[in-house]
Amino acid sequence: MKYGVAIFPSKKLQDLANSYRKRYDPHYALIPPHLTLKNAFELSEEEIKNAVEKLEFVAKNHTPFKMSAFKISSFQPVNNVIYMKVEPTPELESLHQELNANLNGEDSEYSFVPHITIAQKLSDEEHSDVYGSLRMLGVEHEEVVDRFHLLYQLENGSWTVYETFRLGEG
Amino acid sequence: MKYGVAIFPSKKLQDLANSYRKRYDPHYALIPPHLTLKNAFELSEEEIKNAVEKLEFVAKNHTPFKMSAFKISSFQPVNNVIYMKVEPTPELESLHQELNANLNGEDSEYSFVPHITIAQKLSDEEHSDVYGSLRMLGVEHEEVVDRFHLLYQLENGSWTVYETFRLGEG
Repeated sequence: MKYGVAIFPSKKLQDLANSYRKRYDPHYALIPPHLTLKNAFELSEEEIKNAVEKLEFVAKNHTPFKMSAFKISSFQPVNNVIYMKVEPTPELESLHQELNANLNGEDSEYSFVPHITIAQKLSDEEHSDVYGSLRMLGVEHEEVVDRFHLLYQLENGSWTVYETFRLGEG
Repeated sequence: MKYGVAIFPSKKLQDLANSYRKRYDPHYALIPPHLTLKNAFELSEEEIKNAVEKLEFVAKNHTPFKMSAFKISSFQPVNNVIYMKVEPTPELESLHQELNANLNGEDSEYSFVPHITIAQKLSDEEHSDVYGSLRMLGVEHEEVVDRFHLLYQLENGSWTVYETFRLGEG
């Protein structure tokens, strides 16, 4: 089964992200707005218990931290994903690094760029139009992250939460 | 903010439910297949901490239990909802009762009929057609429930998981 690890930002930031995703992100209906901490990876039924223990360990090892979304950016020319850029604080970097060191799955070929996707799978022309206007709108938001979630993917591509991990709890 | 409490069944049962929901349930994209333990209710930011403590208390008070979906049924003539009927075991009844006694929100005017919705908002004619064929297909599934989730609703009507509660853990 395919699993992933993500942070759901506050309702306020999710509502803002969804106001864009609704039009520009074909994954709009598959998962709420999120910041991916670990990309999709495979776990068998035998492996899941062990993985949950590792996630509990990583969660206990971190305390709640400030997360700041400070501009609209794009991964172009790599791909046409437009996103809210999240400040790569030491806390986020460490959370990402520990999750990837402790769980299955290959290391990403890209370095970690914390982000919340708001548009993807656009044509080059759409990307250029949409990015032009979203970039002008910008984003300026700060909140405290105190949890992350382990999710699994259904056959239709959508994601269900398996478990929540609160930071700093023993 | 609007909250609700639900059980997500196994991936296997969710995939089966989604194969019907895709065509017959306009809420398909808003939330994964689920069994509602407590309908939508309001919680302020001040109330959420206390509500989580109550949910932890209820979760500890129960142990994992068998859940069985054993037929396709309909709420007609009350409404045109078609669902997988889940056996109303004492464990489920008690979980439902305690959650509703411990949290805000009005008691439902209906008695608790544990179910996983697979079709809704159909016209009478559609309902009659769809119910006729789904009822013939039936369902026969048993699994163990060991957790439930507290969710909140976004402005677009979709639901995000706030927290997971594992049964029987202290």
